Amino acid sequence: MPNKLAVGILGATGIVGQRFIQMLEGHPWFEVAWLAASDRSEGRAYAEASRWKLKTAIPAAVAKMKVSPAKPDGAPKIIFVALDASIAREMEPQFAEAGCAVISNSSALRMQSDVPLVIPEVNGDHIALIEKQSWRAKSRGYVVTNPNCSAIGLVLALAPLHHAFTLEKVMAVTMQAVSGAGYPGVASLDILGNVIPYISNEEEKMEEETQKLLGTLIGSRIDPAPFAMSAQCNRVAVEDGHTESIAIRLQKKATAEEIIAAWNGFRPEPQQLRLPSAPAQPIVYMTAPDRPQPRFDCDAGAGMATSVGRLRKCNVLDWKFTVLSHNTIRGAAGAAVLNAELLKAKGYFG
Amino acid sequence: MPNKLAVGILGATGIVGQRFIQMLEGHPWFEVAWLAASDRSEGRAYAEASRWKLKTAIPAAVAKMKVSPAKPDGAPKIIFVALDASIAREMEPQFAEAGCAVISNSSALRMQSDVPLVIPEVNGDHIALIEKQSWRAKSRGYVVTNPNCSAIGLVLALAPLHHAFTLEKVMAVTMQAVSGAGYPGVASLDILGNVIPYISNEEEKMEEETQKLLGTLIGSRIDPAPFAMSAQCNRVAVEDGHTESIAIRLQKKATAEEIIAAWNGFRPEPQQLRLPSAPAQPIVYMTAPDRPQPRFDCDAGAGMATSVGRLRKCNVLDWKFTVLSHNTIRGAAGAAVLNAELLKAKGYFG
Amino acid sequence: MPNKLAVGILGATGIVGQRFIQMLEGHPWFEVAWLAASDRSEGRAYAEASRWKLKTAIPAAVAKMKVSPAKPDGAPKIIFVALDASIAREMEPQFAEAGCAVISNSSALRMQSDVPLVIPEVNGDHIALIEKQSWRAKSRGYVVTNPNCSAIGLVLALAPLHHAFTLEKVMAVTMQAVSGAGYPGVASLDILGNVIPYISNEEEKMEEETQKLLGTLIGSRIDPAPFAMSAQCNRVAVEDGHTESIAIRLQKKATAEEIIAAWNGFRPEPQQLRLPSAPAQPIVYMTAPDRPQPRFDCDAGAGMATSVGRLRKCNVLDWKFTVLSHNTIRGAAGAAVLNAELLKAKGYFG
Amino acid sequence: MPNKLAVGILGATGIVGQRFIQMLEGHPWFEVAWLAASDRSEGRAYAEASRWKLKTAIPAAVAKMKVSPAKPDGAPKIIFVALDASIAREMEPQFAEAGCAVISNSSALRMQSDVPLVIPEVNGDHIALIEKQSWRAKSRGYVVTNPNCSAIGLVLALAPLHHAFTLEKVMAVTMQAVSGAGYPGVASLDILGNVIPYISNEEEKMEEETQKLLGTLIGSRIDPAPFAMSAQCNRVAVEDGHTESIAIRLQKKATAEEIIAAWNGFRPEPQQLRLPSAPAQPIVYMTAPDRPQPRFDCDAGAGMATSVGRLRKCNVLDWKFTVLSHNTIRGAAGAAVLNAELLKAKGYFG
Repeated sequence: MPNKLAVGILGATGIVGQRFIQMLEGHPWFEVAWLAASDRSEGRAYAEASRWKLKTAIPAAVAKMKVSPAKPDGAPKIIFVALDASIAREMEPQFAEAGCAVISNSSALRMQSDVPLVIPEVNGDHIALIEKQSWRAKSRGYVVTNPNCSAIGLVLALAPLHHAFTLEKVMAVTMQAVSGAGYPGVASLDILGNVIPYISNEEEKMEEETQKLLGTLIGSRIDPAPFAMSAQCNRVAVEDGHTESIAIRLQKKATAEEIIAAWNGFRPEPQQLRLPSAPAQPIVYMTAPDRPQPRFDCDAGAGMATSVGRLRKCNVLDWKFTVLSHNTIRGAAGAAVLNAELLKAKGYFG
Repeated sequence: MPNKLAVGILGATGIVGQRFIQMLEGHPWFEVAWLAASDRSEGRAYAEASRWKLKTAIPAAVAKMKVSPAKPDGAPKIIFVALDASIAREMEPQFAEAGCAVISNSSALRMQSDVPLVIPEVNGDHIALIEKQSWRAKSRGYVVTNPNCSAIGLVLALAPLHHAFTLEKVMAVTMQAVSGAGYPGVASLDILGNVIPYISNEEEKMEEETQKLLGTLIGSRIDPAPFAMSAQCNRVAVEDGHTESIAIRLQKKATAEEIIAAWNGFRPEPQQLRLPSAPAQPIVYMTAPDRPQPRFDCDAGAGMATSVGRLRKCNVLDWKFTVLSHNTIRGAAGAAVLNAELLKAKGYFG
Repeated sequence: MPNKLAVGILGATGIVGQRFIQMLEGHPWFEVAWLAASDRSEGRAYAEASRWKLKTAIPAAVAKMKVSPAKPDGAPKIIFVALDASIAREMEPQFAEAGCAVISNSSALRMQSDVPLVIPEVNGDHIALIEKQSWRAKSRGYVVTNPNCSAIGLVLALAPLHHAFTLEKVMAVTMQAVSGAGYPGVASLDILGNVIPYISNEEEKMEEETQKLLGTLIGSRIDPAPFAMSAQCNRVAVEDGHTESIAIRLQKKATAEEIIAAWNGFRPEPQQLRLPSAPAQPIVYMTAPDRPQPRFDCDAGAGMATSVGRLRKCNVLDWKFTVLSHNTIRGAAGAAVLNAELLKAKGYFG
Repeated sequence: MPNKLAVGILGATGIVGQRFIQMLEGHPWFEVAWLAASDRSEGRAYAEASRWKLKTAIPAAVAKMKVSPAKPDGAPKIIFVALDASIAREMEPQFAEAGCAVISNSSALRMQSDVPLVIPEVNGDHIALIEKQSWRAKSRGYVVTNPNCSAIGLVLALAPLHHAFTLEKVMAVTMQAVSGAGYPGVASLDILGNVIPYISNEEEKMEEETQKLLGTLIGSRIDPAPFAMSAQCNRVAVEDGHTESIAIRLQKKATAEEIIAAWNGFRPEPQQLRLPSAPAQPIVYMTAPDRPQPRFDCDAGAGMATSVGRLRKCNVLDWKFTVLSHNTIRGAAGAAVLNAELLKAKGYFG
């Protein structure tokens, strides 16, 4: 594969790291060339170091790959990050400083003012922020991030409505899958036959990230979207797929037909550029009265599409609907891969 | 048991019928003397006619009881109803006409203007509506109903806030247990590892019942509470206990301490009268950041208390919190039994 | 698709019927041309008549297809049957009488002495039995069946051992997925957080079918395999994939290496013929100590392979191991499709 | 409570430690006076140190109790042990050496030749082994253990059969609840919609403990029961209650009636002595064809009874049946409490 770009994965053994490996198998542009994880894994073959939790097998080439130390020396120049925030906060600057394009799923730097938080279908123009990063000046390295798994499906569904009708208020209640908490993550004793009405720090992330993502690039900073945003986050006994009950108020009044047309017709830049991981239709409105459902619909668009359903009037705000998005594909690894594809398409890889 | 009042159960073999039998075992005032169900069950011993789905055993006396035809002849004068709405709509008037006190969990007549929809802690005064019922004039019979399982926990939590601070807006998103759909109810293929974002007609019931319950008795009619109310209902893989993510706006501003005090200090009429099924504290505020949870908390107050937690500021309305209530005890059979206790205490049995 | 053979599906709307449609989408030899189901569905478009429960979409051509009456008139000459046994018992003879090749997943005629019960990898020679069927003489029609979903994975795993070492005793304990009970099938109230240690008539089928499948064709009858066979069947909260804990005694002693080699090296007729639905390796031995597991492994070989693991000594018999097989693919629709492929390859369609 | 015996709990914060506290609340003979856990918990109030996972509240007196260092100084003379084996192996000798009666649920010393492994209904006479323990001679301290959660229900069901008909062979396949693995224990990502056919070291324990429990005290050693015993252990998505599919061969032939009578009529020493935690009927045979089931039956006899069902002929051995037992009550804390009650009744406390 002479023409593929070598990429590395920081945090390769976790649930999101596994999804990176799965999504990059056979990728037309990128090739996994380097894996790093915690010290405990260093030097071991990936297949032994990781506790693989996906239904497809570990790609043969990756299974034998040795886990490298989590240091920039010897790492490729494109690095995907699937680390916990506390570790990412230390490591991402080191890799950016060393000249790497750091494409991160971690929450560590998402809200930093000079770090773009990007969904290619929504705010690809925010990438320009990287030119303000000190690393960029020094070594050409930079950090680009993608949002939390609970925010991304929602923001995809909100984006065409915000553009067409301007959001005033957004209320979101989530029912989130256990894979969002990593592995081992949520104990079975906590979630079997249960709902946990709390995910640490999730509501704050969901609220502030939504406003940054739908914000406006003004000069070299992002002006967050000014609508009011409130989130309530719950964990449910679902493996993959975050389901969300949403209510919104719009500034310009819209009919149900107009809203559904805005969703179904949404074809932003990644679709126009035919980026390899961009789903043909990023938002799919389902007409059945009881859809979307995580077990049946979270793999829509190879896990990269957002499913929406049940649009109906709301007595308190204007409209209510249900959003579903795959939390470890579109909500994590796939989000970062799509960011990398956009960066490449825009010439940010050298 | 010479002094106990004989009661009958219409729809005795279903999930709610079973809860009636369980809750009435050893009841100090009432004694199950008559059971009716569908034609298929008629004449069979209860233990054979029902598919018992509770963890406690069928009370011995009930197990042997023959299932009677679903007709007023020979039935006691106090009848609990656990029938589907379509059948209840036909039968409840027949029993009321025959002079029975019909205490119904069915939705059939709940919204009829002369039928009281009652939670004893909230609107016991609405019982006076029965005097307008044509059956009452003819035979002294009447119909009293209790709300839907998704409304009752919410309305209990709202009542002291509405009294003290006046509600302006209420947004509710539910995560409802499968037992709410009866037996066989929700297919396992539909709910294992899944969320179903739809329950037929549930949102409409929840919205209109909440406003009737918190409405005001003016002369001989109920003026529904004027706040805006919006519900989104989901089914989750939980056996018992409906969890709800709530947001409210209040007319009078209140602090978190005032709201929690209003909940914890709520001691309305059923508690003052020490009705046998009234929980000592009808609303319990839990301070742990991740409670209430259905598996651990739905049996609070023997399933008759409502648990509330996670009170925090909302960016769109004023406050957000989580409500949990046992859907087949407080949300169905227990609601009707408590209504019967209130009726007895107020002299409506005789 | 001019060269494809038209096939029909009796019982097309159920869970197994849906799997037939899914597996036949894009099949190189067969094309779904006719669908029948209960009277209730007749005349409706398939997409409306069925409650589709698979993760892939209904193939577009099938979605619009009208559901036909369940009668041989107008039906194609190759008919897959996904009916309940009680209905199949009546209908299969009608279609065979009318000259159809009836390839059935139903249990109705499986144990009838002139009806072959076939797993292509195990006992393709049993197909010869059809020449004794009265329908065959009259109209060239016939009935071929595949085994119960609990038997097929086990028998695949036993076949190479029986051939090489001769089975003396087999003990099987199953943990079966809910999809095996059809839709709506198992109520969620029965299986959430539970095990049901009983499946009506399942143990009897599993025992007698295993002996017929591993039996010997002598002249025009099957001499059942003479080993002792005992089954205990349980239902667990799994969507797809039957897991089985097996113990066996062999007549010829064998080492673990020999047994594993017999499994991994098993390449019978369907693999040699490269039948389209035959998995490249029908039995896969997994070396990880905790595999196979239904959620991760039931799709092995596109759901057509049997996974085996945990081979170890048994203190009572000789060996213990775990078997896993997809119950609605290899255990139902896929079994019948593979039977059809073998029939075609052997010239029985024509 | 002047006359109660003070007891301590080693490993008080885990799932089994919590069950000890729950079962000892209001115990007529014992009173929790001392709690110890890992260093991390030392000095903190129990309510803060533990992550309470039971449906009943922490007893008020215990909630405020300070967690002590895990050392004999200051500990009561009766110590219940709920520690992991690796830690118990070090600590149990220290407490016995210091003169404590160590009543352990840990597997550390269970198979040591001078340590009794006891189920009061089965082999109370084995307690005599403690007189051979070196600690006993020195300080009057000793160690008594109870079996693994997978063995105890089975051995209870086997005991009356072994006494009456003599076991020759036993095959057991378990479907074990997640609470058996402690907290956090089994990850939800591993068990939702899944079966794990492996529990580390469980089969070995189950086999050897069953033979020791049903063995014979000869002089000062236990002669293990000579029947062949084979176990296969699986984890399923059940909160509490181990379900087991059992097959046995008996030396003396017995009818189904005789076997059921042996179970239902079993009234050994703990029942005759009316020990406080002994269930009135230790083995309950259920006649419904689909019982016992963990969700409905594991609380039989307050979690201390074993439920048995589905007795039927086996083609390989003689009989098959299903056993169910609560794994953290009868299978852990309750087993140790009942052992303590027997020790007290026999005068070993003093």
